Amino acid sequence: MVDIATRVHNHKWKIDPIVRSLIDTDFYKLLMCQSVFRNKRDTDVTFSLINRTASVRLADLVDEGELRQQLDHVRSLRLSRGESTFLRGNTFYGKRQMFRPDFMEWFEGMQLPPYHLEKRDGQYELTFIGKWPEVMLWEIPALAVLMELRSRAVLERLGKFELEVLYARGMTKLWEKIERLRQIEDLKIADFGTRRRHSFLWQDWCVQAMREGLGQAFSGTSNCLIAMRREVEAIGTNAHELPMVYAALANSDAELAQAPYQVLADWHEEHDGNLRIILPDTYGTEGFLRNAPEWLSQWTGIRIDSGDPAAGAETAILWWQSRGEDPRQKLVIFSDGLDVDKIEELHRQFHGRVKASFGWGTLLTNDFRGLVADDALAPFSLVCKAVSANGRPTVKLSDNPNKAMGPAAEIARYKRVFGIGEQVAQDVLV
Amino acid sequence: MVDIATRVHNHKWKIDPIVRSLIDTDFYKLLMCQSVFRNKRDTDVTFSLINRTASVRLADLVDEGELRQQLDHVRSLRLSRGESTFLRGNTFYGKRQMFRPDFMEWFEGMQLPPYHLEKRDGQYELTFIGKWPEVMLWEIPALAVLMELRSRAVLERLGKFELEVLYARGMTKLWEKIERLRQIEDLKIADFGTRRRHSFLWQDWCVQAMREGLGQAFSGTSNCLIAMRREVEAIGTNAHELPMVYAALANSDAELAQAPYQVLADWHEEHDGNLRIILPDTYGTEGFLRNAPEWLSQWTGIRIDSGDPAAGAETAILWWQSRGEDPRQKLVIFSDGLDVDKIEELHRQFHGRVKASFGWGTLLTNDFRGLVADDALAPFSLVCKAVSANGRPTVKLSDNPNKAMGPAAEIARYKRVFGIGEQVAQDVLV
Repeated sequence: MVDIATRVHNHKWKIDPIVRSLIDTDFYKLLMCQSVFRNKRDTDVTFSLINRTASVRLADLVDEGELRQQLDHVRSLRLSRGESTFLRGNTFYGKRQMFRPDFMEWFEGMQLPPYHLEKRDGQYELTFIGKWPEVMLWEIPALAVLMELRSRAVLERLGKFELEVLYARGMTKLWEKIERLRQIEDLKIADFGTRRRHSFLWQDWCVQAMREGLGQAFSGTSNCLIAMRREVEAIGTNAHELPMVYAALANSDAELAQAPYQVLADWHEEHDGNLRIILPDTYGTEGFLRNAPEWLSQWTGIRIDSGDPAAGAETAILWWQSRGEDPRQKLVIFSDGLDVDKIEELHRQFHGRVKASFGWGTLLTNDFRGLVADDALAPFSLVCKAVSANGRPTVKLSDNPNKAMGPAAEIARYKRVFGIGEQVAQDVLV
Repeated sequence: MVDIATRVHNHKWKIDPIVRSLIDTDFYKLLMCQSVFRNKRDTDVTFSLINRTASVRLADLVDEGELRQQLDHVRSLRLSRGESTFLRGNTFYGKRQMFRPDFMEWFEGMQLPPYHLEKRDGQYELTFIGKWPEVMLWEIPALAVLMELRSRAVLERLGKFELEVLYARGMTKLWEKIERLRQIEDLKIADFGTRRRHSFLWQDWCVQAMREGLGQAFSGTSNCLIAMRREVEAIGTNAHELPMVYAALANSDAELAQAPYQVLADWHEEHDGNLRIILPDTYGTEGFLRNAPEWLSQWTGIRIDSGDPAAGAETAILWWQSRGEDPRQKLVIFSDGLDVDKIEELHRQFHGRVKASFGWGTLLTNDFRGLVADDALAPFSLVCKAVSANGRPTVKLSDNPNKAMGPAAEIARYKRVFGIGEQVAQDVLV
């Protein structure tokens, strides 16, 4: 029977909104936001969109008017009552009331701050300026909007059956990956693909396919909205923006050297168990671990997010051993540029030596490579980063010089302060 | 919005009917039915289901109760007013009122006769007895019901996402075939896959995919219901059952030798143009053409449905040349066991020499080979044939001894009468 009401209702949409909820974001953004809200809420920050894949000329592909409509729609969003209830009442990482009442009250009234958008050289300059707890929540929706508008621009050229077959191929491709992953003993894998997803509906499909295909081996999704709707675990801990902003706020080289540890000291007070995951690479993993305070070696695990992941994990193992810790009790989360080959390889190398776990991102939720002409749906490397804090530029070095960012003079200073020597460059695919 | 009415309505179905319309059948059955209705309406015939693939044990796979429910549902069908209007008013092969008023009046009142069902050795014995014009209309629905019940039995074991990925793979597989077909210059191809389809919905999808993917190269579907709903051409002419029954009715060897020509003489009176297509192989193509009357060489074309198709087409070309006809003006319809490789090969060999055209059946509408465990969805060779007429057994020889049917003594007699020598055996896949 024709559902006339739905069809008429659909006519009323001026746009098909990409982001329809403030919790259609990575769970760790909310965890970090609460931490920032408690410790640094008055910090002024600027976040900027950076497209590391210059060959994808976003401003040529995506109409500025449409982009503005989508971003305006995101700004119109407020936390809904059900979302608030979920965040307040749900058990995250085995803990109830992860989000404190003062934070929730603030979040319920929060609106994302204005954006600044300009075109330059075929790219969009998209900037968010304001207080850190608000601005930081732009990161994921801004990326998701641009990724999906790019997908839509490409998909617009396809016929109805070409579209259906495209998704059929995408589904087949993912399912074949899942069938390979199913063979891996004791696998633990989560969806980390919100920011680079092909589209919201596609990510939602991927999560459900992972759940049916992998069962207990699928540990959850970083996407808070999908976790709520599909009743799977929300996954995530913390990211580079914390040490980057803390470092920018440092008033001396000595404070700078301590900044990454100060981040984790603040985190240590708030969280325990599986939320105590070290992200060591912001200013070089080796130096970070060498100089780390004693209490940090007792943390639950480490996340390897740049550089050669096997080398990073071996470094962590040696470090734990040097601190008298048993690596077999430690969690190692691989989250950089994963696909099935790499997951199999890392699993072979580390299974039984550590508790390995995988945060699978772009090539889970956006692998349409080879499926349309000119590979026009291939994923690309779009990020949205804190570029300044209280007027000072931020710096990221990471374990891959191709991922470094910040003014050259500041990069040099950071390299000196953190004792960074030669680094091996790795291609940045996504 | 929830369409409550639809959900409640769906609860009322006791079964999910496979065949929901009397015109969910091959168009040529209706053309032949009208011819039989005019010329032989009082003939008593028996049609039987024959599964040529013994390894597919239908009675073990398909529940007898469900099969009876589906067949009972088919018997409950009557020609609807809209279907009747379509048959009466539509232009078929450029001709209006293809179906005469007396035939339509009979068809509007027609109900399929009872069926006889027994289990034996893991197979179903399914038999239809009655007057030829009614019994013959059981062929396609009986096959479609059994094919789809077998699909359902296999699909029942799959999870929701496994199902979705199965269809994703099936769609991808077909689309890749279409992309290859698109490269073929001057291709003419039609869907002939009703009888062996995976399911009704799948055939409907295949037809739409062919239409979008091939454009003008797709000439239509043999399925009358899909042709009506999707507004594509209904395609088909005549089949072996006509000469088989005419031959069984012959009262002497001399009448038997003339029976295949008598069929076409009756057809000649009723049809012209693209409906004048010779199906020469029932009792051996070579002898049939050698002894054919002069007027038959002026027919529009020939359909090659058994034996080596290239050899069959070469035989036809030589025959036309020997009769002073220009083969380049003649239509050659290939319709036996086609897939893309074979289509490409035949096209290469005959493009420019004849007007080649392809009736693509089982491997269009039922190619899920290799997509589930134990290849449990692979198509199999199920047919439903006239086995007797007015109490006498029918015989089919065809150009492939593996497709021969009938009592051994009768086969020997037919071979003698039609002068059949050695034949080359071809595997019967579908």
